[in-house]
Amino acid sequence: MGLDALFSPRAVAVIGASNRELTIGYRIIENLLDFGYTGPVYPVNPKGGEIRGLTAYPSILETPDPVDVAHIVIKNTYVPACIEDCAKKGVKAVIVNTAGFREIGEEGIALEEQLVSIAKSTGIRVFGPNCQGIINTDPAVRAYCNFTFTRPAPGGISIVAQSGGVGEVIHQRITELGVGVRQYASNGNACDVSIPEIIEHFGQDEQTKVVVVHIESLSDPKAFLDTAGDIARHKPVLAMKVGRTAEGAKAVSSHTGGLMKQDTAIEHIFEKAGIVSFRNIEGLCQSAIGFASQPVPAGNRVGMIANTGGPAIIATDELIEGGMVMPSLSEKTASVLRERLYPEASINNPIDVLATAGPEHFAAAMNALRDDDAIDAIFLNFVTPFFVDTLGVAREIARANSQSRKPIVATVMTEKKGWAETLKLIRQSGVPTYDMPETGARVLASMGRYAALSKRPIEPPVSFSDVDSARARSIIRSAVDAGKSLLSADDGYSLLSCYGVDLAPYKVTADVEECIASADEIGYPVVLKVESESVVHKTDSGGVVLNIPDPDSLRTHAKQMAAQFAKVSPKFLVQRQLREGQDVIVGAQAVAGLGHILMFGLGGIFVEVLKDVSFKITPVTSREAREMVESLRAAKLLSGVRGQAGVDLAALVEIIQRVSQMLTENTAIRELDLNPVFAFERGATAADVRVLL
Amino acid sequence: MGLDALFSPRAVAVIGASNRELTIGYRIIENLLDFGYTGPVYPVNPKGGEIRGLTAYPSILETPDPVDVAHIVIKNTYVPACIEDCAKKGVKAVIVNTAGFREIGEEGIALEEQLVSIAKSTGIRVFGPNCQGIINTDPAVRAYCNFTFTRPAPGGISIVAQSGGVGEVIHQRITELGVGVRQYASNGNACDVSIPEIIEHFGQDEQTKVVVVHIESLSDPKAFLDTAGDIARHKPVLAMKVGRTAEGAKAVSSHTGGLMKQDTAIEHIFEKAGIVSFRNIEGLCQSAIGFASQPVPAGNRVGMIANTGGPAIIATDELIEGGMVMPSLSEKTASVLRERLYPEASINNPIDVLATAGPEHFAAAMNALRDDDAIDAIFLNFVTPFFVDTLGVAREIARANSQSRKPIVATVMTEKKGWAETLKLIRQSGVPTYDMPETGARVLASMGRYAALSKRPIEPPVSFSDVDSARARSIIRSAVDAGKSLLSADDGYSLLSCYGVDLAPYKVTADVEECIASADEIGYPVVLKVESESVVHKTDSGGVVLNIPDPDSLRTHAKQMAAQFAKVSPKFLVQRQLREGQDVIVGAQAVAGLGHILMFGLGGIFVEVLKDVSFKITPVTSREAREMVESLRAAKLLSGVRGQAGVDLAALVEIIQRVSQMLTENTAIRELDLNPVFAFERGATAADVRVLL
Repeated sequence: MGLDALFSPRAVAVIGASNRELTIGYRIIENLLDFGYTGPVYPVNPKGGEIRGLTAYPSILETPDPVDVAHIVIKNTYVPACIEDCAKKGVKAVIVNTAGFREIGEEGIALEEQLVSIAKSTGIRVFGPNCQGIINTDPAVRAYCNFTFTRPAPGGISIVAQSGGVGEVIHQRITELGVGVRQYASNGNACDVSIPEIIEHFGQDEQTKVVVVHIESLSDPKAFLDTAGDIARHKPVLAMKVGRTAEGAKAVSSHTGGLMKQDTAIEHIFEKAGIVSFRNIEGLCQSAIGFASQPVPAGNRVGMIANTGGPAIIATDELIEGGMVMPSLSEKTASVLRERLYPEASINNPIDVLATAGPEHFAAAMNALRDDDAIDAIFLNFVTPFFVDTLGVAREIARANSQSRKPIVATVMTEKKGWAETLKLIRQSGVPTYDMPETGARVLASMGRYAALSKRPIEPPVSFSDVDSARARSIIRSAVDAGKSLLSADDGYSLLSCYGVDLAPYKVTADVEECIASADEIGYPVVLKVESESVVHKTDSGGVVLNIPDPDSLRTHAKQMAAQFAKVSPKFLVQRQLREGQDVIVGAQAVAGLGHILMFGLGGIFVEVLKDVSFKITPVTSREAREMVESLRAAKLLSGVRGQAGVDLAALVEIIQRVSQMLTENTAIRELDLNPVFAFERGATAADVRVLL
Repeated sequence: MGLDALFSPRAVAVIGASNRELTIGYRIIENLLDFGYTGPVYPVNPKGGEIRGLTAYPSILETPDPVDVAHIVIKNTYVPACIEDCAKKGVKAVIVNTAGFREIGEEGIALEEQLVSIAKSTGIRVFGPNCQGIINTDPAVRAYCNFTFTRPAPGGISIVAQSGGVGEVIHQRITELGVGVRQYASNGNACDVSIPEIIEHFGQDEQTKVVVVHIESLSDPKAFLDTAGDIARHKPVLAMKVGRTAEGAKAVSSHTGGLMKQDTAIEHIFEKAGIVSFRNIEGLCQSAIGFASQPVPAGNRVGMIANTGGPAIIATDELIEGGMVMPSLSEKTASVLRERLYPEASINNPIDVLATAGPEHFAAAMNALRDDDAIDAIFLNFVTPFFVDTLGVAREIARANSQSRKPIVATVMTEKKGWAETLKLIRQSGVPTYDMPETGARVLASMGRYAALSKRPIEPPVSFSDVDSARARSIIRSAVDAGKSLLSADDGYSLLSCYGVDLAPYKVTADVEECIASADEIGYPVVLKVESESVVHKTDSGGVVLNIPDPDSLRTHAKQMAAQFAKVSPKFLVQRQLREGQDVIVGAQAVAGLGHILMFGLGGIFVEVLKDVSFKITPVTSREAREMVESLRAAKLLSGVRGQAGVDLAALVEIIQRVSQMLTENTAIRELDLNPVFAFERGATAADVRVLL
């Protein structure tokens, strides 16, 4: 049943109820009554008496049966005992509005741990602490278990927010825009009921058409990824990416008390889950309205209708920058339009029906785009000239919307008082209607983005069968047992070969003469590298010599290196010098509670100066591995430019997937660097590896 | 006097006045009367009689004296004669609302040319045709010479828009936001009164605090650049960049009838002029409100105050991405805050005063930031908890604003009905107040951008005295006279040497033996290039051989090239092979009516794959030349990475300036390519040049 009792309680108690208006204990009762909560409300206060006209009970244990949800707004230290009473009473969930838990440090953390353990031992669910609460606008429930003031109309948007402040801003804005909300939740410290659980609840709620999420950091990134990913396949999930800048991230960590785990991965988690992400609240709210009222487009091809040119240009820029395309009209569509529109009308995409166009012209243009198979969505730019029957145009828009399976998004630019009726008619028809061409265009582009995300094929990551997982496990286990944090070269290379990654032949040797012997076996030219746990950055410290042509010069370099690193009694690694290929880097970093983030990029200046790298969360599917390669700005270099042959992209895509499998099967790997990997016309070979545990 | 009579007419006539409500000839009279125009309005209609209670005159010649402005709304073909009558009458300016001119093609162009010639011969000014008109809210004037419906309050924002549709959207939005407008103009086809003239008029109008510009394309880019540049030094000029995408640009050309000249340079013109540019109307309007009410910040250092964390994170991200910085608080500021705020408050930047903070806490924080010399601007994030004296906080904000020389921008997140008084008090105080943290942050960032633009030092471009302008002119004149569109190698290299650009030594030779002789003089290794007007892309067609080490191989290559290009009887160019340096490109393209756009970038993949190039309009100052080099994503490569020495940046900056001078003095150059230029640790040398006339 999940969170049904929380969102649809049969009765609500408020423990810490008060008659003083400026208290949360009063406000929540007021909100429940004002909003028309359909169940009984039980104020609880040791003094008894009456609170806002309701009988107050001295204890939760004395309230009439059954109570599904109890708000707790008493002092923090009294909360654990209170929850135990609630559990005794059979309360299903408590909403702990009281603050003074994890966010205040040690003492609060201990208190919060008590709440968690009571929840575990009794089965009662704890929502919060240090939170706002929930709202459910379902006419059968109308539960306003929250101390905020927004009064939403029932609708299709459900909101979950880590920050009550931001959640309330989103909630207010959507309500102000005249659009309804289904359910709302802001769970503060989230000690028990979690954001993934709430998302799942919204996902299963049929009346929720779109889920809006605000998170600043994730306590359980894996649960979030899995749940949101499942939901997002069939229902749009929209979220904001905050903390994008270093300063913003610092503010996040200061806001959440630095207690949340790794959050730099959020952006990549959104992408993997198929969440549509936004850079600002306004865009998120406007898009939610579009998703709540219109079908998802089948693709990204937009047909635009305008009755003035300037705004159409602005909308075109935004649509294209948002990943949409505006195909030329088919000859059939064009000829229909030529017949029905004014002769001076512009029969392009955007279609300019002219400022003098009336209802019949708009109708003709909308019908033509509806019937054109090369168009997935219709964008309307409508200014309201005083000499046009704008009400008639509005009626045609409403008609078109009721007949169209393609989404229609409109920008209506008007003097709102003079054209209130026209605006109302369009709004009521269910066509999302925006003031600004750029706003409407961004909304439609976000719908196109979701269409693409939700249509990505479901494919499990490839599991290569030629790998030696057992040996890899044992290499890592031995290293861990030996307390090593850096794998030896031998172990690192062996690990890679367990997963079938092609390696430049090498040998680890103990002294200069063994170097010479190994090089004879491997064949010149060779590379000489110092090998010691104490030397992490070999290149920077002079521990790597490339392109050694013959035994004499190998001897010279080996002796010199032996002298230089004498202190750490190093070994030496002799390795085949690979012919010149395109050098690339494959890297990875563990993310607590999630897995690893894989990185791919071209070597040298591309990674160091241009920061031209791509990221994916493991396990990486073959589509994702391809995207990693293709999304680089310098991707063309890999496929060949100026008549040069490209490199073996398939080999790179395979290495990425093999490394992904290695990481997924060996969670003890903390950091990995294959740098460089040389990509050739045929194949790709790793020349160096560094593995941190 | 400029456009004073147009914007402050003593009397307005409407030629083509009508009693039918849905006509422009009625609407303009209605608007003038409704808005309270302070002068007389004279309807003109051949039938005479009364129009909307006013005496109608059969001809403009019969209206009482004096008439400064006459609207013309009669059929297009009657307009020229009508303007002649207006000129006879002594009308200062006509606003031709009538359409059917340049935008309809040949016939309309001829008509429009008649208007221009009447304007020239009589001195009457023509505004339009095919336009909305002007508005002036000055209480002494109140001229609503326009058929739109917006009723602005008097204020400090003046708007000029090429597209009446977009102009009206901007106008409506600003009015809807409760902010006043000073003057408005949308001049349609702009055959006489031009956008630069209108900008200049706004610039000289003391009551105009900020100028908002919408343009889609420029008929006289030089006039625009010069005028807007002058105004923007002392008054903020805001503009939107439209047609950013290829599709958007196509829509522009379709909208403006493709009759405007080159407009790809608009973005660079904005930058050179010091205009603050925007990507969307909403951002432009919101910023206009900020500029109209607050001082320009002295720099980009922001101090933020918040009473809840989430929105502060969002604002921080936007500020940083917008180029602002958020410095740590000084110890002095921090200690003042520790004394005055709640102990749990977060004394960082952002300062979190806590949700429970009251007026005294906000006051303390604002005062502390006002007194901190390391802070240029104050950003407030204020949510309105029901248990806080929010009216008191609003009063403190108003007080702080009246005492502060630093701009204050606020985000107030609230339920607008419940907190209407609080909101009103803050708004009336003159603090620009936004709903969303990101919106307010973007406004403040745009103010920081203007601060930086307006403070750029005024410096004329360097005029190098060691150049031989006369010889350069004669080279180009000869080539033009000979009907050449591509300069010969000799001429191209000579031109560069006239301007003191360092060149790899070369010789143009007629045959193979002369090649050998020249190479002996120049010294090996050499480069061999085919030289013929018919071979424009030498490298692609096999007409360039690099790194020829000795006479034998030079002979072989020269013979082969002679055979390959036998058809065009080519010459050969032998040139010193430069040692390896960093190759860069300097390019230029003429822009009609403006000058040239200079381009700089690193060669090879950086320009071809990564498109990592910078642009400036000539003449380029030394600051601009430096910016061209420093703004590349790969700029670090030039200054040296991974222990490698950088190249001679000063030499590159000088080449850019010398080329700029060459282009400025030789406007016949249509295209220029210095590719490659090799930059060394000391100096930089051009190895090839291509000049199109």
